[in-house]
Amino acid sequence: MSQSETKPFDYIIHNVNIATVSEKYSDENNSYGIIEDGCIGVNGGIIGYLGAYDEELEADEYIDAEGQWLTPGLIDCHTHIVYGGNRANEFEMRLNGADYEEIAKAGGGILSTVKATREATEADLFRSAAKRLKSFMKEGVTTIEIKSGYGLDTDNEIKMLKVAKMLQQKFPVRVSSTFLGAHALPPEYRDSPDEYINLVCNEMMPKIAELGLAESVDAFCENIGFSYEQTEKIFNAAQEHGLSVKLHAEQLSDQSGAGLAADYKALSADHLEYLSEESIQKMAKSGTVAVLLPGAFYFLRETKLPPIEELRVAGVPIAIASDSNPGTSPAQSLLLMLNMACTLFRLTPLEALQGVTINAAKALKLDQQIGSLEIGKKAELALWDIDHPNQLSYQLGGSPLSKIFK
Amino acid sequence: MSQSETKPFDYIIHNVNIATVSEKYSDENNSYGIIEDGCIGVNGGIIGYLGAYDEELEADEYIDAEGQWLTPGLIDCHTHIVYGGNRANEFEMRLNGADYEEIAKAGGGILSTVKATREATEADLFRSAAKRLKSFMKEGVTTIEIKSGYGLDTDNEIKMLKVAKMLQQKFPVRVSSTFLGAHALPPEYRDSPDEYINLVCNEMMPKIAELGLAESVDAFCENIGFSYEQTEKIFNAAQEHGLSVKLHAEQLSDQSGAGLAADYKALSADHLEYLSEESIQKMAKSGTVAVLLPGAFYFLRETKLPPIEELRVAGVPIAIASDSNPGTSPAQSLLLMLNMACTLFRLTPLEALQGVTINAAKALKLDQQIGSLEIGKKAELALWDIDHPNQLSYQLGGSPLSKIFK
Ligand SMILES: [Zn+2]
Ligand SMILES: [Zn+2]
Repeated sequence: MSQSETKPFDYIIHNVNIATVSEKYSDENNSYGIIEDGCIGVNGGIIGYLGAYDEELEADEYIDAEGQWLTPGLIDCHTHIVYGGNRANEFEMRLNGADYEEIAKAGGGILSTVKATREATEADLFRSAAKRLKSFMKEGVTTIEIKSGYGLDTDNEIKMLKVAKMLQQKFPVRVSSTFLGAHALPPEYRDSPDEYINLVCNEMMPKIAELGLAESVDAFCENIGFSYEQTEKIFNAAQEHGLSVKLHAEQLSDQSGAGLAADYKALSADHLEYLSEESIQKMAKSGTVAVLLPGAFYFLRETKLPPIEELRVAGVPIAIASDSNPGTSPAQSLLLMLNMACTLFRLTPLEALQGVTINAAKALKLDQQIGSLEIGKKAELALWDIDHPNQLSYQLGGSPLSKIFK
Repeated sequence: MSQSETKPFDYIIHNVNIATVSEKYSDENNSYGIIEDGCIGVNGGIIGYLGAYDEELEADEYIDAEGQWLTPGLIDCHTHIVYGGNRANEFEMRLNGADYEEIAKAGGGILSTVKATREATEADLFRSAAKRLKSFMKEGVTTIEIKSGYGLDTDNEIKMLKVAKMLQQKFPVRVSSTFLGAHALPPEYRDSPDEYINLVCNEMMPKIAELGLAESVDAFCENIGFSYEQTEKIFNAAQEHGLSVKLHAEQLSDQSGAGLAADYKALSADHLEYLSEESIQKMAKSGTVAVLLPGAFYFLRETKLPPIEELRVAGVPIAIASDSNPGTSPAQSLLLMLNMACTLFRLTPLEALQGVTINAAKALKLDQQIGSLEIGKKAELALWDIDHPNQLSYQLGGSPLSKIFK
């Protein structure tokens, strides 16, 4: 309240229902932390007032929200939106009965995206990623994580990460960048995966860290990806360079990857359909966020659900993300992921909303600044034409967003 | 070509890839009926030229589409977008573990929508339906079918159908209205369903036909809806009033409803998860369209798939629709339905596109005017920023629509 006493606010939004998604405003009967018919005052991009409307509050601008709903700006904490080409042809071939071999022969699969991404200029990648980013922004996204991982050589990984930073410069959105050199094995290292891991750790990562192009390091730990030991090498290198770690873990099989990630105090372990109880306990202890990706689950027609109830019982924070990528989740909607998290994974609408706000912020180590509405946090806000925040999960397509404040 | 010789076109779109979805332009190697780097000329809202760009073609306006893709405007041939309230609370209660009884006690279920719809004014219904309609229009929809069925008395059914007509007057969209009095049993007829059917046939339908408020008549034939015999009464009444018929059939069990519908030369039978081979043969003979509703299948987490391959073999035209409704498919995206038709039902992207163009037009008896791009048909067009029409099915959320021409 000190700010409000010393000078007027830049703006005040009043006549607004506020879903703070903050523990400070929540109790047993108010799990969303709702302030009904409330008011928010913002100064220098920081929330300075939250509560009932008070005629004493002075501001340069008064915004009447006409009873709409305000939430934290949404956070998509796991995407791959920078890439060349798309895989619609592969999608169509498969539906016309083509098998794995025919698709590979026709140049399909992840390596087709690597080829297209390598051939694309920075401007090409910017243009196509900007279209995807705009789709997310139309649904209230104010922070997005973007991974590299389709360059798979030093120059092209750096090219991807530069494009991610350019997006932040050109659009009113925060980008958290993740170096995912160990996404797949590039064709030139087909027979020498450990050499590739050395390249990732000893050449790519030092350069990327020096250039300040990534906040985190990620890897794809899977029987069709990289092993437990290779992942450990990557995590050790990340630690040396002071970078946070994350992991694509337990999507198709249990590799104990999430447990390893927790051992390294990973911000998050993502996918987790095959997560073991042992790894859950490690995650709970280390505070590692479970990032669930219902779009990939849906698109791949998976049937094994992540262990939601066990995660709840253990107190592991759950986030939801789009995994937006050309091969396994060509998603351009975070709201759709809320619906899929509820419909397919049986999360509650509250859990889904927490999954794209406060818990997604935790997965990016940004929860001190964003992810819930509290005094002192950044005023990154989404205003919605809805009757209750549970509608954000209920609705199947379409966006009730009225406005973003950032 | 005669028009182009007599006078200049109102407008010409050139530098455009055209997916006609017309048999006239299709062959074995060109199943979408694509005219690459083509040109379309429009006069008085009618397509007058389709083919390669020709400098001789004169027009009042020349539109350079910059290599984008043109398709027929999309058609959503099965929706319930006019209703009061929403059922997000019920959705949330169920995900928090409430059972059927608790939800019914809390005023949930279809009768809660009936109550809210009865209490709503025409203006209320228009306002909420307009928001949903705009979502569909943002994704290229130029024709939408809208059913009544939440009024369940004469005045309120008429109120709903009037709102549907108002939408057509206020937005650049064609509305095809369907009278669905036999959607559910209203509470006041709980113990006398046959009396309600009499009301539908002898009071509601004559008035609605007289007012010209509906093109078709529909019913919900199901063990939790209306019986085969009751449906037959409704179809007989519809025939008397010269109205086309459609049917919600075989969604939860096989009631032989689709076969009955075909006996009455129904335009479509919709849902069809439990469709029998006998009914398929009847549909093929009568030309009844199979309208598949993947949004409801997804939202209800159904597991029994409609008999797609059998429908293909029999040559039954397949359409795809949103079934947009508050209880079982709160969908506001037709493109998402294309993806779900492919991902969940394994339709091909071509079948999905035909399902929201030419076959959806057949399901509304509008295929002589719209649904494909041919000389003489209406110029209701959607322009897309895509590389190929298969992308419309591949993409999961977001809309690559550039512009609607209507
Ligand atoms: Zn991923
Ligand atoms: Zn329906």
